[in-house]
Amino acid sequence: MADNPSFVLRGIDDVAYEERPVPEISDDEVLVEVKKTGICGSDVHYFVHGRIGDFVVESPMVLGHESAGIVSKVGKKVKTHKVGDRVAMEPGATCLVCDACKSGKYNLCPDIVFAATPPYDGTLGRYYRLPAYNAHHLPDNLTLEDGAMIEPLAVAVHSVSNLGGLRSNQSIAIFGSGPVGLLCMAVAKALGASRIIAVDIVPSRLEFAQAYAATDTFLPPPPNEGESKLEFSKRSAALMKQQLGIEDRGPKAIDLVIDASGAEVSVQTALAIVKPGGTHVQVGMGNPAVTIDMGTVLPKELVLKGSFRYGHGDYALGIALAAQGKLNLSKLITHRYVFKDALVAFKATQAGKGADGKGIIKAMISGPDLTVDVI
Amino acid sequence: MADNPSFVLRGIDDVAYEERPVPEISDDEVLVEVKKTGICGSDVHYFVHGRIGDFVVESPMVLGHESAGIVSKVGKKVKTHKVGDRVAMEPGATCLVCDACKSGKYNLCPDIVFAATPPYDGTLGRYYRLPAYNAHHLPDNLTLEDGAMIEPLAVAVHSVSNLGGLRSNQSIAIFGSGPVGLLCMAVAKALGASRIIAVDIVPSRLEFAQAYAATDTFLPPPPNEGESKLEFSKRSAALMKQQLGIEDRGPKAIDLVIDASGAEVSVQTALAIVKPGGTHVQVGMGNPAVTIDMGTVLPKELVLKGSFRYGHGDYALGIALAAQGKLNLSKLITHRYVFKDALVAFKATQAGKGADGKGIIKAMISGPDLTVDVI
Amino acid sequence: MADNPSFVLRGIDDVAYEERPVPEISDDEVLVEVKKTGICGSDVHYFVHGRIGDFVVESPMVLGHESAGIVSKVGKKVKTHKVGDRVAMEPGATCLVCDACKSGKYNLCPDIVFAATPPYDGTLGRYYRLPAYNAHHLPDNLTLEDGAMIEPLAVAVHSVSNLGGLRSNQSIAIFGSGPVGLLCMAVAKALGASRIIAVDIVPSRLEFAQAYAATDTFLPPPPNEGESKLEFSKRSAALMKQQLGIEDRGPKAIDLVIDASGAEVSVQTALAIVKPGGTHVQVGMGNPAVTIDMGTVLPKELVLKGSFRYGHGDYALGIALAAQGKLNLSKLITHRYVFKDALVAFKATQAGKGADGKGIIKAMISGPDLTVDVI
Amino acid sequence: MADNPSFVLRGIDDVAYEERPVPEISDDEVLVEVKKTGICGSDVHYFVHGRIGDFVVESPMVLGHESAGIVSKVGKKVKTHKVGDRVAMEPGATCLVCDACKSGKYNLCPDIVFAATPPYDGTLGRYYRLPAYNAHHLPDNLTLEDGAMIEPLAVAVHSVSNLGGLRSNQSIAIFGSGPVGLLCMAVAKALGASRIIAVDIVPSRLEFAQAYAATDTFLPPPPNEGESKLEFSKRSAALMKQQLGIEDRGPKAIDLVIDASGAEVSVQTALAIVKPGGTHVQVGMGNPAVTIDMGTVLPKELVLKGSFRYGHGDYALGIALAAQGKLNLSKLITHRYVFKDALVAFKATQAGKGADGKGIIKAMISGPDLTVDVI
Repeated sequence: MADNPSFVLRGIDDVAYEERPVPEISDDEVLVEVKKTGICGSDVHYFVHGRIGDFVVESPMVLGHESAGIVSKVGKKVKTHKVGDRVAMEPGATCLVCDACKSGKYNLCPDIVFAATPPYDGTLGRYYRLPAYNAHHLPDNLTLEDGAMIEPLAVAVHSVSNLGGLRSNQSIAIFGSGPVGLLCMAVAKALGASRIIAVDIVPSRLEFAQAYAATDTFLPPPPNEGESKLEFSKRSAALMKQQLGIEDRGPKAIDLVIDASGAEVSVQTALAIVKPGGTHVQVGMGNPAVTIDMGTVLPKELVLKGSFRYGHGDYALGIALAAQGKLNLSKLITHRYVFKDALVAFKATQAGKGADGKGIIKAMISGPDLTVDVI
Repeated sequence: MADNPSFVLRGIDDVAYEERPVPEISDDEVLVEVKKTGICGSDVHYFVHGRIGDFVVESPMVLGHESAGIVSKVGKKVKTHKVGDRVAMEPGATCLVCDACKSGKYNLCPDIVFAATPPYDGTLGRYYRLPAYNAHHLPDNLTLEDGAMIEPLAVAVHSVSNLGGLRSNQSIAIFGSGPVGLLCMAVAKALGASRIIAVDIVPSRLEFAQAYAATDTFLPPPPNEGESKLEFSKRSAALMKQQLGIEDRGPKAIDLVIDASGAEVSVQTALAIVKPGGTHVQVGMGNPAVTIDMGTVLPKELVLKGSFRYGHGDYALGIALAAQGKLNLSKLITHRYVFKDALVAFKATQAGKGADGKGIIKAMISGPDLTVDVI
Repeated sequence: MADNPSFVLRGIDDVAYEERPVPEISDDEVLVEVKKTGICGSDVHYFVHGRIGDFVVESPMVLGHESAGIVSKVGKKVKTHKVGDRVAMEPGATCLVCDACKSGKYNLCPDIVFAATPPYDGTLGRYYRLPAYNAHHLPDNLTLEDGAMIEPLAVAVHSVSNLGGLRSNQSIAIFGSGPVGLLCMAVAKALGASRIIAVDIVPSRLEFAQAYAATDTFLPPPPNEGESKLEFSKRSAALMKQQLGIEDRGPKAIDLVIDASGAEVSVQTALAIVKPGGTHVQVGMGNPAVTIDMGTVLPKELVLKGSFRYGHGDYALGIALAAQGKLNLSKLITHRYVFKDALVAFKATQAGKGADGKGIIKAMISGPDLTVDVI
Repeated sequence: MADNPSFVLRGIDDVAYEERPVPEISDDEVLVEVKKTGICGSDVHYFVHGRIGDFVVESPMVLGHESAGIVSKVGKKVKTHKVGDRVAMEPGATCLVCDACKSGKYNLCPDIVFAATPPYDGTLGRYYRLPAYNAHHLPDNLTLEDGAMIEPLAVAVHSVSNLGGLRSNQSIAIFGSGPVGLLCMAVAKALGASRIIAVDIVPSRLEFAQAYAATDTFLPPPPNEGESKLEFSKRSAALMKQQLGIEDRGPKAIDLVIDASGAEVSVQTALAIVKPGGTHVQVGMGNPAVTIDMGTVLPKELVLKGSFRYGHGDYALGIALAAQGKLNLSKLITHRYVFKDALVAFKATQAGKGADGKGIIKAMISGPDLTVDVI
């Protein structure tokens, strides 16, 4: 029996279970026994491509960073946790003393150690060590699965609340109805948005979004032949305005747009429909080269913000909104796998649907049963 | 003798002096006798192309919007002005009651009547009527030429101070060393920036910038064959960092970038060199389709803001900084013309140099002598 | 039959119905037939004392400023309204062009014409003229009584949202459970506050508050003999912390306190219980001389904000929250009177209870039946 | 010879030199050999009263917290410092992980270890250990005396820039012309304030202020018999407005007031003269019970902020402004003492003048010569 079996990416499309040493913790850290881990698009991206932008997997790396578990050991100086505590695991340990850390934007810390971002190992093992401040206590009415979902929820909280500054009674349009887009809708609803428009090119996703948290949906038209992307986006935005009664000013205007798709036409359409003086938050990443229309950005004085992970307060707000029942996390977990089926879970997430033929929104892996063969 | 001779754009490259009726003023307005008018790139753009984006000159339009003059008549309810007052003329009359007007962003008022933006006439006539609130008193130590320069100065104040939020001891890089870029540098200096980097592809402009307000300059390298614009921009940014000792964090980082060039590679380079968490203000407009690298914008959590004209407080701050001697406006006026030579002034501005062979930064027209032949 | 019978304060405790001329409206105004008017503490204060601070009633003044009605005439330039529109009447006409007006803080306009603030007449007549921008359309699901309640609701929105900046999941304590305090609680609930503590010295008011919008209540202890107010307040705050499990930091801390009582000990207690870095909004006014403990304000770096009426966006947000059913206005209207019983309504509000012996929260007067005897 | 002679407060008015152990440093700390220490009013207050508010000296405590020195030892993990570095010593070590620390307000950290605040020893010894992040490198053109002055300068930066948000061209009035008040004036000047009004009851202090950084001064009138403090303050404010041409609105209004005196009438006068919508920052502390006029605070919607020490970025901005020559620190050091005369320095600071009969602004102690007799 292995003490710390771990699911390791060795190369493109090459994974294995390895026995890793149980981490030593420092005085300020806790050791967490990982119980639930969601699969994120970025995990799959490393699995398929071996890199995301400048982050390249150059040596074997444990995957996984959306996790919750139970504290199994606490450092000498830790007064906030005890063995047995159920915690949502925030996966980025930061330096605490740089400008970014000291101003609430620790996601910009140059020395962040982020789970499953090369060269750092992720959480898909039996044990993971965390600074105590990153082990967020789970209220009694949240499950460990909910706890694992706090990570993508924090991404949504960061985009919608922290960067987007959404306030009660504002209108929002969210492009992309994958897990992050859906969580953005849930956060918007929890924060009292009066209108939440889901945009996606897959009708079934829009149906899910509407049932989940959106008040309206929009399915973009097919592109016309010979039409440039900017032309298409302009036409799509015009259609969207007409279908949904969106205006440029007043209560029928869109205050905030979030692109959680990463698609160039989504960015363009979002900039076209948001109101003058409005804000666009970019949280999705696809092909990084995106052409925007400064002829829209300037006269409307738009603000476009890049969103990256989460900063101070985002985990706390996410946990609170979930615990208060203002948003539901379990509805997004469509498929569940045991640890030894981690590869199946990855393949299914890559394919976008499970063995049951149903679309995967979020696959959740129960963390290590101890029956896997490790090396 | 004409009462209100005006310099009118009738079509592309087709101008003439017309006698226009002296405007009737309402109770809240003043009538200003225009004394000095600077020529802006947008005036020339209408002259050459007959349009800027969606704004199309469809009927004859008086040109000019950077003006100062002397109040010659005041409306019945006006208590703030008297005949003879010297004023900088803010060229946008707004509705005052919409959301934009009531929240300090009156540049986004949908009903703004802006001089020399179709279909509204500009200021290059003898008389122009203004709401009293747009006739800004000139302190005694500012000339009428200074007064005409307040308009582009307000654009710079809006970009650097209002949107960019520049504070004392911050570092700024400004792309484009035309009039607006230079004024942005002057504003940055006046606000206490510790480092002001001018970027331009014309060495003589950089020399001027350095003598005027910049602390450093950067001349981008020539593009390599086969290199994409994003590749070029990345390389140019790397070179800029190295040459100028720019770092990603700390006191050698760039807090704020302003693009006053409108060139795609400038936007890209600016986004590449600004620090994580930094702000990019886009005030220049060239080809509106600009490709940006979301792989830079997201992990650095950049904020990109479109800048459009100016809003509440920008004229006032511009006038104050000029009157306090914190910035100099007259140095930018390189060429002066009388009213009957307005066409010469436009042609020269279009060519970028005067009959003296020297580069034009700002051409100033003294407003109407009454010797022109009007129709 | 009178065309415009009005309820006029002639001196202290001296009111009468007078026939006033029907107001002439300008091109930008609407004439509203007033249908419902709530009585505010300030109306009663003028009735009893003839003044509030520096505002002194020196000539007969129509009372009332919390009103809703039906548009009966529209100015020539008004495009936003038509005869028959149901509107909540915002009672302050502003100059639109001063710094305050242009920056969203029109409540600070030095030239504001505010209903029933000397020397300006109020709304308790048949007709009242308003700039069109101050006649806010009522959604179909709001009654005219709701419409009259928007005025005090806007005060609460201004204090809790605009100045207090309350966000979802924050904790708030509100001192004073009169109409404004209760509306602050309702707004806090609508904005997603996780904890709303009502503080009052009258137990029945706390019961009402708990049933209406508060999550917790606190009844301050009786003062001890010889105890200074600051000593009492410190002791009261300590008791409040203990009873309600309030802590200085973390999720059990109080983020925001509002004093809607005007009582000195409320201000002191509020400053003592709010968390370090927290905000105190003062909306209630009693004896203006209030002693605060800088030994609390400094080391906790508290922010104390004075709240005065409402500014841009407050009416709109109040109407939206009410129309969305996020808060209830009719529950606060405990007593209703016809126009000819206006004096009875004032006397009852002054006494704090109606002829039925029940405590008055808000008395509402239906606006002019035409049976009163006017002079 | 003692290794670490220290100047220790043993009780009220009871000091002695003691030999203290040389501090052990942890891996993240540096050991600094203290070279210059300024005496602060709070040091003297502990010396005279043995307490400041709830902070009581219960066991012998080394005094001093305004210091600069030379790094003599660095912890194993410290990469930012080396032996011999000249540093301004920020005296508050914080926990780094609480809400306050993670949001830039580390001055509100409940676990802060602040020099010479009971029970923590101060810097008036030979050695002091600091977390590396609190040892701020001194630029070459700043002396060690300048370095010791950065501490009170940071207090001023925090009040004027961070909390007061002063921007170029704003007007400020500063009450109290002691060291902190003077430094607030210097910061205001460095940040481009257009008008800086010094208020003090001692004419010679006003002369110094005017020569140092103020543009205007005001000497309050003597109180009238029988006049309450609020009445006096109202009268003083009216006189101040008249004498200095202060208006309620526009460019002659006061945007920001700072009280660095702690006197009740200063607070009251400041609130009376600041413009509607303006900000008052309270940095001085005298008798903590201060009566304010809510009849001023509410209709002007003032914001009153308590200021406590300094937070993220304040030391850095202070050092930068000093190094750029935008403000002068050495002019404030009026008296210099060697270590063995520390008691003389304290007595003189308490008396407010030196043996030379001249008023003390700031007394600076050169830290330890090794000739003192220690116990």
